[in-house]
Amino acid sequence: MSGAQSQNSEYIIMASPKPRSFKGTRDFTPREMIPREKIIDSMKRVFRLYGFSPLETPALEMLSVLTGKYGEEGEKLLYKLDYKNDDFMNRVALRYDLTVPLARVIASHPEWPMPFKRYQVQPVWRADKPQTRQGRFREFYQCDIDTVGAPEGLADAEILALTVTMLDDLGFKDGDKRAIVQLNHRKVLEGICVYAGHPREDLAGFCRVLDKLDKIGREGVVSDLIDMGINDEGIDRVDSLLKLSGMYGSLSSTPADEKIDHVLAILDNNQAATEGLEGIRSILQSLKELGTDLSRINFNPVLARGLDYYTGAVFESTLPGQPHIGSLTGGGRYDKLIGLYGGGDKPAVGTTIGLDRMFAAMEQLGMVDTEAATVTRVLIAAWSADQMSACLQAVRVFREAGVPAEVFPTTGKLKKPFSHADKLNIPYVAVIGPDEAGNPDGLHVSLKDLSQGTQETLQVANAAEKVSSTNRSAPSS
Amino acid sequence: MSGAQSQNSEYIIMASPKPRSFKGTRDFTPREMIPREKIIDSMKRVFRLYGFSPLETPALEMLSVLTGKYGEEGEKLLYKLDYKNDDFMNRVALRYDLTVPLARVIASHPEWPMPFKRYQVQPVWRADKPQTRQGRFREFYQCDIDTVGAPEGLADAEILALTVTMLDDLGFKDGDKRAIVQLNHRKVLEGICVYAGHPREDLAGFCRVLDKLDKIGREGVVSDLIDMGINDEGIDRVDSLLKLSGMYGSLSSTPADEKIDHVLAILDNNQAATEGLEGIRSILQSLKELGTDLSRINFNPVLARGLDYYTGAVFESTLPGQPHIGSLTGGGRYDKLIGLYGGGDKPAVGTTIGLDRMFAAMEQLGMVDTEAATVTRVLIAAWSADQMSACLQAVRVFREAGVPAEVFPTTGKLKKPFSHADKLNIPYVAVIGPDEAGNPDGLHVSLKDLSQGTQETLQVANAAEKVSSTNRSAPSS
Repeated sequence: MSGAQSQNSEYIIMASPKPRSFKGTRDFTPREMIPREKIIDSMKRVFRLYGFSPLETPALEMLSVLTGKYGEEGEKLLYKLDYKNDDFMNRVALRYDLTVPLARVIASHPEWPMPFKRYQVQPVWRADKPQTRQGRFREFYQCDIDTVGAPEGLADAEILALTVTMLDDLGFKDGDKRAIVQLNHRKVLEGICVYAGHPREDLAGFCRVLDKLDKIGREGVVSDLIDMGINDEGIDRVDSLLKLSGMYGSLSSTPADEKIDHVLAILDNNQAATEGLEGIRSILQSLKELGTDLSRINFNPVLARGLDYYTGAVFESTLPGQPHIGSLTGGGRYDKLIGLYGGGDKPAVGTTIGLDRMFAAMEQLGMVDTEAATVTRVLIAAWSADQMSACLQAVRVFREAGVPAEVFPTTGKLKKPFSHADKLNIPYVAVIGPDEAGNPDGLHVSLKDLSQGTQETLQVANAAEKVSSTNRSAPSS
Repeated sequence: MSGAQSQNSEYIIMASPKPRSFKGTRDFTPREMIPREKIIDSMKRVFRLYGFSPLETPALEMLSVLTGKYGEEGEKLLYKLDYKNDDFMNRVALRYDLTVPLARVIASHPEWPMPFKRYQVQPVWRADKPQTRQGRFREFYQCDIDTVGAPEGLADAEILALTVTMLDDLGFKDGDKRAIVQLNHRKVLEGICVYAGHPREDLAGFCRVLDKLDKIGREGVVSDLIDMGINDEGIDRVDSLLKLSGMYGSLSSTPADEKIDHVLAILDNNQAATEGLEGIRSILQSLKELGTDLSRINFNPVLARGLDYYTGAVFESTLPGQPHIGSLTGGGRYDKLIGLYGGGDKPAVGTTIGLDRMFAAMEQLGMVDTEAATVTRVLIAAWSADQMSACLQAVRVFREAGVPAEVFPTTGKLKKPFSHADKLNIPYVAVIGPDEAGNPDGLHVSLKDLSQGTQETLQVANAAEKVSSTNRSAPSS
């Protein structure tokens, strides 16, 4: 209702055309927002435990800051604003991700002590063709955790340890819901690229083919590699490594150390690969010391990640029991990106959590309760207008006990508040009639538990205590 | 780092021009975000207690939904997207406020039970000339609370009771920081307009002049009213009411009931005014029953609010001890707006909290701690590389005790981690040397309290307990 900034703006009331939303955008109703806020709160708690602090940047960035970072394909997806169109240097666009804004912030604050560790939970925009069924939207939330200014090693391990802690906290822990972090290193991929006989200069193209493994399968990848001009011997060589991905067959349960030795034996003369494998080994050692269950980490020598800017470790987390869901998180080390904005060498490592995909996965797997359409736990209703005043006194008692409560605003048939509570899944209705309002022992309510179908007359303070102690549909606070 | 949606987009690395931000937008660094998140969390807790549930809507709305709502002035401030420019029906713009999106959501869900109570905390955009010193930005947060589908009375009182609870919770309670809610009714203004001899049809114009009272003062308002063509008798009549605003002189402490009687006596033959005053009286009665301290509510018969769409109560909260700060919250009843989108009659009442102004006020008044540049409460440092492994074991113990902790990622001179902790205002540094790591009684740390300058050697679990029990710079969790 009317911003502090809106002085003098005229609100001319006119009939509108049928309202519609922009395709690829969504409203989040209370049914979705109540669990979403819980999930975000739980994630933030983990980020903070690991020493990551909150950062927010504006939705609007100078177009000149955004261009040249996302490649030709990405550039097409920038939403430009119809503002000073004629002057490229002053054009503005909506942010495409949270990484380039981070790089800009770091470059703007050369005085900041390093390492700088931040989390950021904000929407990003892509002028893409929306495919809402596949979860592809034009406006969606990202949640990024990055450490800037720390060398490869501990900082990478911390991001992975945090990822496992967070996934466990959210419930991605056991059985079909068990999440696994896939881990690789760009230098291992460089070794494989050379081993396959493909020019090192086209490592990016080579990685993009490998990145499609979970979508097009081993045969698809092989076929694409042939199209790239890799010969039979090269194909056999890559294929021997594809088998080690951990995505097919028994090798998935092979301990990472053994797999590293195996890959090292195959790529033994390649310096890049040797360095990459040492990097992986050191990250795994740190993870062990941090107490992370190593059976949650799968060294996957062909994990590639689509983006070109990675320079070291790359990782993503997946649900092997639910392969159709795709990756819940993904990231890696990118030591060259931030320095480009000036301010000297700034190594960095981080991960993105795809909040929308995560939420969709949790909904599909029955991990979130989207039943409650309100935070309200008790709806207070007056028997007649004469008890309205008692209802207002009662609602205060519930709130002082920490119970989200509201008074049904009109009186008349009691059927109305009961039907309202039923539709919104409010667990309790507290009715106040003449007997409850006039009780010589103080204000009482007749408290009905809608799921149990039970009813009792209680002092209002006792009713508040009772509602407060039952947890059904309780909002996080 | 790299959204789940970003597959195949090429990240071409190129040097960039000196990065800059779009004027009128801001980065919120951890120093600002840590207290901001605390404030928002505290506000959400109050909203939920009053039964308001979270809602989010997209930043991008169809231009056709936004136009015709904000008047000519407001319309100019819409940020349009450079997307399908040639076709008006498919143009898109950034949201200007959170009220029109609410109206669209309500119209899209005719099946929702009423009343619908939501809170919404999201940025809005206005293509305004930014005046960052006066707190006028192009991108800023709004926080709206609205009840749709409840008649005038209780719902209005609840919004005001919530406002006072929230302001108290944030610390706007006593002395110079005491916030007061100004309350009026559009029908009272209608009565005054007619009483002044001004045509009722230009009530909006009349209100816009009164709305400037806090900016241009009583004499400025009188001069503007003369320019509008109001004659001497009319001016005298308005002036007699301006004196009752409670903004000047002793009448500010007059009980509302007395002031209502006074205004009623002046405007006694005017039906609109009589209805408006009854409305105010009934809201005040509900507030009393809800336990709100009525000395926090000032009935101000000339409070106008700038927007034309209000139809009933209007209100804003101000700090009489800090008049330069302006209003912290503002809102009112708007019974005709939502129905325009279809779906029948939908009365509504709500308030906006200007988060940025609120935060600026709290900063000025020393109510927020912006000292901590990180959530981390203990920085763990290794004496030499040999203790790095012990540091990782220690950080786990701190985190399991709920203490945000991190390990300084490099070893070498201990001066570095201490200087880092000092710059970021991290309260504790825990050093692990050979003696601490090899202590026969288990892992120890040498814990230094940087503000006290004290140091002691403790079992790591005891150190965690100590840090956890001191509250300095503790992040909200």
